[in-house]
Amino acid sequence: MRALVKEAPGPGMVLKDVARPAIGPSDVLIRVRMAGICGTDGHIWNWDKWAQSRIHPPLIVGHEFMGYVAEVGPAVRSVAVGDRVSAEGHISCGTCLLCRTGQAYICEHVQIIGVDRDGCFAEFISMPEQNVWKLDPAVPDTWAAVFDPLGNAVHTVMAAGVSTKSVVITGVGSIGLMAIPVARAAGATKVIAVDVNPDKLKLASRLGADLVFNAASPDLARDVLEATNGDGADVLLEMSGSGSAINLGLSLVRNGGRAALLGLPSDNVNLNLAENIIFKGLTVLGINGRKMFETWYQTQALVVAGRVDLAPIITHVEPMAEFRRCFELLKEGKAAKIVMTVTE
Amino acid sequence: MRALVKEAPGPGMVLKDVARPAIGPSDVLIRVRMAGICGTDGHIWNWDKWAQSRIHPPLIVGHEFMGYVAEVGPAVRSVAVGDRVSAEGHISCGTCLLCRTGQAYICEHVQIIGVDRDGCFAEFISMPEQNVWKLDPAVPDTWAAVFDPLGNAVHTVMAAGVSTKSVVITGVGSIGLMAIPVARAAGATKVIAVDVNPDKLKLASRLGADLVFNAASPDLARDVLEATNGDGADVLLEMSGSGSAINLGLSLVRNGGRAALLGLPSDNVNLNLAENIIFKGLTVLGINGRKMFETWYQTQALVVAGRVDLAPIITHVEPMAEFRRCFELLKEGKAAKIVMTVTE
Amino acid sequence: MRALVKEAPGPGMVLKDVARPAIGPSDVLIRVRMAGICGTDGHIWNWDKWAQSRIHPPLIVGHEFMGYVAEVGPAVRSVAVGDRVSAEGHISCGTCLLCRTGQAYICEHVQIIGVDRDGCFAEFISMPEQNVWKLDPAVPDTWAAVFDPLGNAVHTVMAAGVSTKSVVITGVGSIGLMAIPVARAAGATKVIAVDVNPDKLKLASRLGADLVFNAASPDLARDVLEATNGDGADVLLEMSGSGSAINLGLSLVRNGGRAALLGLPSDNVNLNLAENIIFKGLTVLGINGRKMFETWYQTQALVVAGRVDLAPIITHVEPMAEFRRCFELLKEGKAAKIVMTVTE
Amino acid sequence: MRALVKEAPGPGMVLKDVARPAIGPSDVLIRVRMAGICGTDGHIWNWDKWAQSRIHPPLIVGHEFMGYVAEVGPAVRSVAVGDRVSAEGHISCGTCLLCRTGQAYICEHVQIIGVDRDGCFAEFISMPEQNVWKLDPAVPDTWAAVFDPLGNAVHTVMAAGVSTKSVVITGVGSIGLMAIPVARAAGATKVIAVDVNPDKLKLASRLGADLVFNAASPDLARDVLEATNGDGADVLLEMSGSGSAINLGLSLVRNGGRAALLGLPSDNVNLNLAENIIFKGLTVLGINGRKMFETWYQTQALVVAGRVDLAPIITHVEPMAEFRRCFELLKEGKAAKIVMTVTE
Repeated sequence: MRALVKEAPGPGMVLKDVARPAIGPSDVLIRVRMAGICGTDGHIWNWDKWAQSRIHPPLIVGHEFMGYVAEVGPAVRSVAVGDRVSAEGHISCGTCLLCRTGQAYICEHVQIIGVDRDGCFAEFISMPEQNVWKLDPAVPDTWAAVFDPLGNAVHTVMAAGVSTKSVVITGVGSIGLMAIPVARAAGATKVIAVDVNPDKLKLASRLGADLVFNAASPDLARDVLEATNGDGADVLLEMSGSGSAINLGLSLVRNGGRAALLGLPSDNVNLNLAENIIFKGLTVLGINGRKMFETWYQTQALVVAGRVDLAPIITHVEPMAEFRRCFELLKEGKAAKIVMTVTE
Repeated sequence: MRALVKEAPGPGMVLKDVARPAIGPSDVLIRVRMAGICGTDGHIWNWDKWAQSRIHPPLIVGHEFMGYVAEVGPAVRSVAVGDRVSAEGHISCGTCLLCRTGQAYICEHVQIIGVDRDGCFAEFISMPEQNVWKLDPAVPDTWAAVFDPLGNAVHTVMAAGVSTKSVVITGVGSIGLMAIPVARAAGATKVIAVDVNPDKLKLASRLGADLVFNAASPDLARDVLEATNGDGADVLLEMSGSGSAINLGLSLVRNGGRAALLGLPSDNVNLNLAENIIFKGLTVLGINGRKMFETWYQTQALVVAGRVDLAPIITHVEPMAEFRRCFELLKEGKAAKIVMTVTE
Repeated sequence: MRALVKEAPGPGMVLKDVARPAIGPSDVLIRVRMAGICGTDGHIWNWDKWAQSRIHPPLIVGHEFMGYVAEVGPAVRSVAVGDRVSAEGHISCGTCLLCRTGQAYICEHVQIIGVDRDGCFAEFISMPEQNVWKLDPAVPDTWAAVFDPLGNAVHTVMAAGVSTKSVVITGVGSIGLMAIPVARAAGATKVIAVDVNPDKLKLASRLGADLVFNAASPDLARDVLEATNGDGADVLLEMSGSGSAINLGLSLVRNGGRAALLGLPSDNVNLNLAENIIFKGLTVLGINGRKMFETWYQTQALVVAGRVDLAPIITHVEPMAEFRRCFELLKEGKAAKIVMTVTE
Repeated sequence: MRALVKEAPGPGMVLKDVARPAIGPSDVLIRVRMAGICGTDGHIWNWDKWAQSRIHPPLIVGHEFMGYVAEVGPAVRSVAVGDRVSAEGHISCGTCLLCRTGQAYICEHVQIIGVDRDGCFAEFISMPEQNVWKLDPAVPDTWAAVFDPLGNAVHTVMAAGVSTKSVVITGVGSIGLMAIPVARAAGATKVIAVDVNPDKLKLASRLGADLVFNAASPDLARDVLEATNGDGADVLLEMSGSGSAINLGLSLVRNGGRAALLGLPSDNVNLNLAENIIFKGLTVLGINGRKMFETWYQTQALVVAGRVDLAPIITHVEPMAEFRRCFELLKEGKAAKIVMTVTE
């Protein structure tokens, strides 16, 4: 089968023929139809410090996808050949404290597809039955292909709790953008997007942000106070991973507010803990992955109910053969979300 | 001043001149502009069993209203003459366990205006400063006049927690109707209204219910299962107070779901506790009044954000002089919500 | 192997030789050492209405036990031959909404050992790997044999939330008795036991109840108010399943309190919903089984830390050959908890 | 009256005669019997950077105390002359979002006695009625005098939620020490104390810590893992305010755990947010003051139930005339908690 492979240490990937994966008794073979490109894939392409420490080539890359069930192991009961599916890319151990208490998404022994084992930029992928998610017919293919990052947005929004609340989102990359319609659909009464990129802020407005502000504006703090009756925002959704944005975002939250941190800082953050968290009585939540599978139910419910529109975010749909151009677009920051057609 | 008064035991009320209320050092005198009529007012008019046991005439009736501050006591700091306000009608003791732990709405020593002390169907009403709520200019007068029952709906919806969930509402009287747009705005992905009155169900659809069902339909259980992927509803909002509706509503909720009960049964309810609550692992919440003042912030946030439209619910706005016709309409069940203009 | 079997409809059970159970690839064969007798087993012995509707003989009875792993299927990874184990007796489907969102304990497709499939009153039992619980060496055999009902008590206590609170327990059968040290260990500052049986109340005192009251006492309401600063109890743990005890228990809880209902009423309950739940703003929780496996972690933590002493509750340890005498003791209500030694 | 006063900028305080405070209509005059000395008082004595920025001399210092009601304003209803009381030292505005939603303890307009207005190191202090707390007779005077810091410990423990959990406490100064019996009483099954001071660790053991470790030990991480079944601690209570202790403490918590931060760092903290909070899916809570008045109810319940013993922590009780020696002891770090007798 054709697959996009990180063949060896160093930048780049190659599209080549590889063996179709075998499946075990509880596994499901999925014919991949569409797959999303994530910032993580860009790190692997670029072979940066993180990639060097984590990735062991050769490896098929990619972790966001949808497709059709092509084959099932003999013990599989909940899905059948032909089912239209997506899948949770975090494969948990099933036996640790976290897996046994409904927190498999933070299993310490997790293996991530496209990172720790072969991924979805390939005609076929093998997944454990328990990771497979049956798609509602109302979900378009391109949207289903990005249920993984959309799930990150939903997990962040739902962990924070936005119903009837004012929300600041710092960082409107693709997940930050997705968080805008998700927060509105989940009940936020005011969504304020903050970023340094004016194009992203325009897109944020189009997606339903009530207010957008440049992070560099000297009036930002005053503007957010004005927009929140002088109290500060009820909730922060931190999607940038930038240390300065994290301090800024926390400073915009009112006393007693909640902050959900999804963006991953590449280094330690010099945090004003006393002023921004302790005195304020803030609740700060570290967000990782998606709740298995509460987030998937929530995500599908939002999409099927027509409450979230991803069309403006999926700016590019390209055949996998054009992968070089896709990674170029990703690097230039000109795309919001790129989906590759892997098979027709 | 003119006031609508329950003068003596027995049916009816009279519109008459009474003395303007005095205010204490921490009180606020409010010139009432508009006031909503509640089912409770109907009980007082009819002098039913509950009214006979609770009401001590003579009493000015009415507990839902908005108006303008006319005078403030010397200790009042947070409102000023001329402010446009509504007010929480539950006056709590301030010193009990509940008042001291943020649960004043269930204070055991509560006094309710229009029930335990003089109410708002009058040109003026005196309220403790802490009960007064300053209105955002974006809230129309007629809507502000019904913040009390709207707050009941918001309290019920927010206690249940509806964000991304499927919701069944049993009983779409005026508060049940309000709960429909509130639940949608708060993030519900599917709202199912159940009632025996086809006119109310039509109005429920107009207000945004995704599905409406007659409570008497033999297919109801099957229809709700079908609408919820075979699982049952995530959440029940019980607004009818009918014993059969409560059992029915609970039976429509999925295992592990939540039920918020606002409707007040007039008698004991013969409940299938084992099947409908215990085996299911349900969480059942008794709802009383409005959280002071979390619900008020939530209510105003929803209205100011334009997420809730009350226009279809406020079916009648009449001068207080027409109070007989108003109570007639209430009795006939032809009105959803009636607002009286008390002063111009 | 020897097993205690419900051979046919009608009262009684027989001890006889049956085939040792086969195990599948993900199953674990456990040599049962000790097993607890539950009230449910008494219903099956007596062949009452419930048993007639649920049980399909022939069936090996029993669902509370501990033993040693005798054999594991080829796919089993987390336990090994020789491990000392107990097991969760609710076998969930693994694929429904509830199983996929951390609520497997209320899976609608649950199968219970000793009820829906062969149980543990036998030399060997086959259990799915995921149901097996490895025992800490600090847990005595007799205590490990009753982790199932102890887990019911822990689940009820932890769902209610008792830390720093006053707690009323209505019904001190074996699980109600267990709830006393569990509630104290979990942080309750006052535990009040209510029952009609003076012997049980004596045992309740011995187990750490701060106060015990006869449910029939005319002064009960006054006494509980006095014991709770006039507020009422913060929490009710309902362990009796009696309709009158449920109404009584709810009436003893303060406004805004929490009630966890574990006792199963055999019929509908005529509940004063308005006074006892709605006006009070109560939270009522239906409790079923044990959280898989959060409750098991909590249970073992409490026992290993030495915070819970079951010795006074396990009043009888008898060889399985004496099963007739055990069921006689159970019927007479003279035993708190009976454990049978199944193998040496 | 005699009072301990910060008379002017610069180190030290003076004991002198000052005017007895006047009371307003809703105020209560309290004759102070005993008062605790807090680290904050040491900062004020030393006139450090924080004190220079916050304190405006002349000021009567002190914020932890108990005494007897000497006089009440005409509007006071809930306390009477002669009542034995303590008081919450955070005086909130009563009208902001936080005060109106049960979060007065993080009111942005808070005034703290002994910091922003005259404090309790004086024969008399005037307090608003709503801040006064009536003491149960079972609470000894010396303990009642330190309900403020004990409340900090209770607030931290209860916000974290320790029932059935393993708990690491970093920093066992006086509040960290108090947190040990409080955590045990609130249901923790294992309490691990970490500090750099061996004397404090000895006291920690005496107070009920199951394990104590020196923060500098190279084996600390391994030891905590061993003590927690290889998972890490469920809960961190951070009481030191040291940046390195915060990173260390967070690293000792398991994935999905909770951390409550009470210790106030004097500078920004260089935090490993990605590893220690985000990947782990941690919940981090900023803790400030005490919940008004939920924490006070919890604190008194724990003490009255005899679940918390403060005797080993209150190492010194001295007459206020010996204030110089008290502050000397505080500086030397030789005292755990010092209480001054203000009046007999």
